[in-house]
Amino acid sequence: MIWNTNLRWRLPVVCLLLEVALIALFGVFVRYDVDADPHWVEEKVIRNLSTDMENEFYYRYPSFQDVHVMIFVGFGFLMTFLQRYGYSSVGFNFLLAAFGIQWALLMQGWLHSFDGRYILVNVENLINADFCVGSVCVAFGAVLGKVSPVQLLIMTLFQVTLFSMNEYILLNLLEVKDSGGSMTIHAFGAYFGLTVAWILYRPNLHHSKERESSTYHSDLFAMIGTLFLWMYWPSFNSAISNHGDAQHRAAINTYCSLAACVLTSVALSSALHGKGKLDMVHIQNATLAGGVGLGTVAELMILPFGSLIVGFICGIVSTLGFVYLTPFLESRLRIQDTCGVHNLHGIPGIIGGIAGAVTASIANIDLYGEEGLAYAFGIERSKLNWSPNMQGRFQAAGLFVSLATALVGGIIVGVILRLPFWGQAPDENCFEDAVYWEIPKEPKSTACIEDSSLKPQEP
Amino acid sequence: MIWNTNLRWRLPVVCLLLEVALIALFGVFVRYDVDADPHWVEEKVIRNLSTDMENEFYYRYPSFQDVHVMIFVGFGFLMTFLQRYGYSSVGFNFLLAAFGIQWALLMQGWLHSFDGRYILVNVENLINADFCVGSVCVAFGAVLGKVSPVQLLIMTLFQVTLFSMNEYILLNLLEVKDSGGSMTIHAFGAYFGLTVAWILYRPNLHHSKERESSTYHSDLFAMIGTLFLWMYWPSFNSAISNHGDAQHRAAINTYCSLAACVLTSVALSSALHGKGKLDMVHIQNATLAGGVGLGTVAELMILPFGSLIVGFICGIVSTLGFVYLTPFLESRLRIQDTCGVHNLHGIPGIIGGIAGAVTASIANIDLYGEEGLAYAFGIERSKLNWSPNMQGRFQAAGLFVSLATALVGGIIVGVILRLPFWGQAPDENCFEDAVYWEIPKEPKSTACIEDSSLKPQEP
Amino acid sequence: MIWNTNLRWRLPVVCLLLEVALIALFGVFVRYDVDADPHWVEEKVIRNLSTDMENEFYYRYPSFQDVHVMIFVGFGFLMTFLQRYGYSSVGFNFLLAAFGIQWALLMQGWLHSFDGRYILVNVENLINADFCVGSVCVAFGAVLGKVSPVQLLIMTLFQVTLFSMNEYILLNLLEVKDSGGSMTIHAFGAYFGLTVAWILYRPNLHHSKERESSTYHSDLFAMIGTLFLWMYWPSFNSAISNHGDAQHRAAINTYCSLAACVLTSVALSSALHGKGKLDMVHIQNATLAGGVGLGTVAELMILPFGSLIVGFICGIVSTLGFVYLTPFLESRLRIQDTCGVHNLHGIPGIIGGIAGAVTASIANIDLYGEEGLAYAFGIERSKLNWSPNMQGRFQAAGLFVSLATALVGGIIVGVILRLPFWGQAPDENCFEDAVYWEIPKEPKSTACIEDSSLKPQEP
Repeated sequence: MIWNTNLRWRLPVVCLLLEVALIALFGVFVRYDVDADPHWVEEKVIRNLSTDMENEFYYRYPSFQDVHVMIFVGFGFLMTFLQRYGYSSVGFNFLLAAFGIQWALLMQGWLHSFDGRYILVNVENLINADFCVGSVCVAFGAVLGKVSPVQLLIMTLFQVTLFSMNEYILLNLLEVKDSGGSMTIHAFGAYFGLTVAWILYRPNLHHSKERESSTYHSDLFAMIGTLFLWMYWPSFNSAISNHGDAQHRAAINTYCSLAACVLTSVALSSALHGKGKLDMVHIQNATLAGGVGLGTVAELMILPFGSLIVGFICGIVSTLGFVYLTPFLESRLRIQDTCGVHNLHGIPGIIGGIAGAVTASIANIDLYGEEGLAYAFGIERSKLNWSPNMQGRFQAAGLFVSLATALVGGIIVGVILRLPFWGQAPDENCFEDAVYWEIPKEPKSTACIEDSSLKPQEP
Repeated sequence: MIWNTNLRWRLPVVCLLLEVALIALFGVFVRYDVDADPHWVEEKVIRNLSTDMENEFYYRYPSFQDVHVMIFVGFGFLMTFLQRYGYSSVGFNFLLAAFGIQWALLMQGWLHSFDGRYILVNVENLINADFCVGSVCVAFGAVLGKVSPVQLLIMTLFQVTLFSMNEYILLNLLEVKDSGGSMTIHAFGAYFGLTVAWILYRPNLHHSKERESSTYHSDLFAMIGTLFLWMYWPSFNSAISNHGDAQHRAAINTYCSLAACVLTSVALSSALHGKGKLDMVHIQNATLAGGVGLGTVAELMILPFGSLIVGFICGIVSTLGFVYLTPFLESRLRIQDTCGVHNLHGIPGIIGGIAGAVTASIANIDLYGEEGLAYAFGIERSKLNWSPNMQGRFQAAGLFVSLATALVGGIIVGVILRLPFWGQAPDENCFEDAVYWEIPKEPKSTACIEDSSLKPQEP
Repeated sequence: MIWNTNLRWRLPVVCLLLEVALIALFGVFVRYDVDADPHWVEEKVIRNLSTDMENEFYYRYPSFQDVHVMIFVGFGFLMTFLQRYGYSSVGFNFLLAAFGIQWALLMQGWLHSFDGRYILVNVENLINADFCVGSVCVAFGAVLGKVSPVQLLIMTLFQVTLFSMNEYILLNLLEVKDSGGSMTIHAFGAYFGLTVAWILYRPNLHHSKERESSTYHSDLFAMIGTLFLWMYWPSFNSAISNHGDAQHRAAINTYCSLAACVLTSVALSSALHGKGKLDMVHIQNATLAGGVGLGTVAELMILPFGSLIVGFICGIVSTLGFVYLTPFLESRLRIQDTCGVHNLHGIPGIIGGIAGAVTASIANIDLYGEEGLAYAFGIERSKLNWSPNMQGRFQAAGLFVSLATALVGGIIVGVILRLPFWGQAPDENCFEDAVYWEIPKEPKSTACIEDSSLKPQEP
């Protein structure tokens, strides 16, 4: 096989073509929602609003910025743990996310914000575009170090498309609750990525093994990613919840779940090591599983102790996954999951989907109040024969649909990415920035320059 | 003495037991406040609110997220300055804070948000829990590198308990103002930690001295912590102030104080060095003292120039402390203060408490307006015979109570932590991640991989 | 020439004198705006406000914090790419910004928020002070590594003064729109800095060339700066826009422009490299040009596809600038532009100014609605004979005024900074932290400490 990793024309052409196409489509389709349009002055009169504070911007912009940080710094730096792949982790994540959010604005816009002629965008569209790209970042974790940026752009193009369709089926047809995306973002992203990694199996990857580990400082860079994901996850799970109590509750629940998850991740990490030592991989990843697990249920009445239980379980399962499941996936199923997304997003996403189905099916008027229940599940809108039990079953159906879409989509996209002309590196050169990046020469000596080496100063 | 640092069973058992206990207590006691409960829809009718914007969430959530970043990234990375203790600084801070916020939700809940049957939590509880843990992070700075994670969890358990009781005495019994916690968080945390460090004195710590310093890159990691603390401190000091002008004023004052503090820290750092060079320790720490010093007074009418003066003094005193006081504490008082918390949180916390007493005692109607004065000090509620002078004296009393609680509590907790079976390391192995962490092998060569080392590409 | 870089008395004296002067001026002039004053309770009655939510604090504080992060972490870390200048990049940026915001509060206050007796500050003043300092950070990029902290403080003193006067001419006399500062912040800051760098030309800088490059980890630190700038730029461009739709629109437009800019930066970076490899310098800088280019136009009706086009162009022009223009400036015009601010802030700032003039000149009632147009351009206030065409011409005039002020001011300040007693380093010692910082000794071995090196544990 010919490995030509020189992307001189392929990468520029793909980037420029995609961007030109995006500009054309934006020109035809994308306009401002009334909350972001100068006609807002008139809208306030129509809706009898006395204050600009009612603009959607003020309800959601702080959460949007937190989510934005998660996508670019959170996911980007989380993946810098590899010793020689920091540029690519941060840089390719930056590239695919920047492309993905534009394409997601269009895809999700056509399906959710289309007024017949235009896609009307406001801050909620920005959040949803970031969410959609979040699922691509998850999938990126599974193929990290083994694909070229051209392959990543193609994967993003397809995955955003599939994500939007799957999301449409879940939210609009099945009318499922999934505000933090346990199913649509995490489970979908993880199993999509794992399927792609399975198709792209590299039999000789052991030649790159010495680079598939961390160094002391690369692990600290990764902790920047971990902490920003962990801290802002309450914003992630509450960003598009209903105004008022739902957003508020989603933040509290996620905060609780994540805190519990840290303790069980640490406990298992120590218990599973021969000398009781902690493993950075678990601290960087498993501690976040509690956020994934709350993605469906955060805005529902799971109660704080319910959130703690979900976090408790996710931390344990995720750490166990890193120790036992990842090696098994690689040796038996030929799935090389670089970042262990199966443990951080896959299983916790499924747990989250199940928790959502259970919590929805036990919803009742005692817990929510009559109006509260109607508002939380949007019942007054359409669903005359709604029952909690039915909602629970639709939630479960949503999980299966997401998994099926991920598997089928992942196979198709994986086969496309196997084509030999996307600039991928040979197995020997995986996990190596020098393939696609100009790397600075290391200075001759890393020793500090002593005063004596400075030019003597005249008195 | 037997030094068994293998935590294989001790750490997991402690983590899991604590978490199970927390889940049980949350199940019995913790519910949502009405702002986070589906009954919010009905509450809006009762309180005649026309908009969800009046939900406490929108008043406090952006500040909460800033505080959250300070606790986890701010304190965590601030302590990564040690060359071989980065994993532990970030990781143990993560662990103790994640446990601490849960326990603080309960302790503070029982004392402040208990309706007789349930603790009702909203975003303000989350902020207060983060605040409480902030004081544990301060104390962690005093014992950094010398304690095991099991000791830290035990210290957190006790310190959160003591913090909540001390806070109750100050805020509810003495009715003291301390919205940014100069007294309750910083002075309490620092003197508690210093007392613990005093009890845990390690006579042979000089064997670890070569690791008790920074490297070039570890100092840059620490600057991430410094800057996030510095930037978000206005949110810290305003997060739980009254709605409206008090939050607004607290942010402005803190912004001013911190800016002034940077200039005096730099000035003193240069003046105290033989060749006029700056010391990273001062830039990382003393620049923050202006935030600590404003913790009591930020929301009061100290005026912007008053804030500058507090920042001016704190920067000078704190830098002097690093140069003269820390060595003195170690050599004479046998207090080994790893991070110099005495200079960053101890003295500035006392300065803040004093500034609060002075500013409160000169409050008057000219400055505040009649209604403004009543609102700022909550006078209409209970205090018929309230006078600024009296408030000032109660403020001073609050400071003494905090210091006394810290000393007594620190001695008790220190004695408990001296017990030999908590997995602490011998003096020779302090400040060393390898004791409790699986450390990656450094790559054979750190030199960059040149193109020539990549597998040749076929044409 | 005598190179005395010992700042022992010069730096402390300058810092302390400046701070004392600031305190005196604050004492005389600075008070709280009514939104931050206890009289807010009464103001609410006067303005018939039913809620504290109408306090300016809640409209702008989240954006303020984002801008604050951009100034201190964003600019600070962006400049850490140099291998031996990380302390200075972050530390001097911290110092100059902390001084600059105080001086800007005064200068901008006298010109914009002076009620005849006092400068009344609220959160908007804090944002504007950060903006003003942003332009100093830009100029700092041009002289990075070649000036002493004393020189930086003097430059800040003058540049903040000039910035405020230029801003006053543009916003108050020419009544120009420039909410994100393409002209006032970026073009002004860049050309001011470039002019200073031109005056301070160092003919023997090639002796420091081996330090004027990055290392692997210094590039990752720089990406922290890049990403926080990139992510929070929507807040930057919308922070002081009108409430409601204008803030909302500015955020959406900037988000779009920045996303497009990443794709064209990557495309050009790869296309201009012999082997199609990406260059970190472009990813760190050119990706941000889309935010600069939107600085004038973000709140106007450029439409999302217009934003994409601006981002598209800025990414291309900026990357081309790094490859072709920076070497040309150095070799022909003797302008040594360390960070390439000409490519990131200079040209994109001009593009932004032009885009603003064009967009303003085609404003019409169809796009904005009658009320919307009046509100967007503040027409009802003063301008009876206002026309879009005229607005466009004033916008263009504003750009020229900014450039002229930058050039003239830069020459004057450059000449002052050339004086030989400010502690600047010789050409051989540029880009070197050890000149002004106490540098830690590197540990003997960077190899990790194996278990075997830990003190053996007794069983």
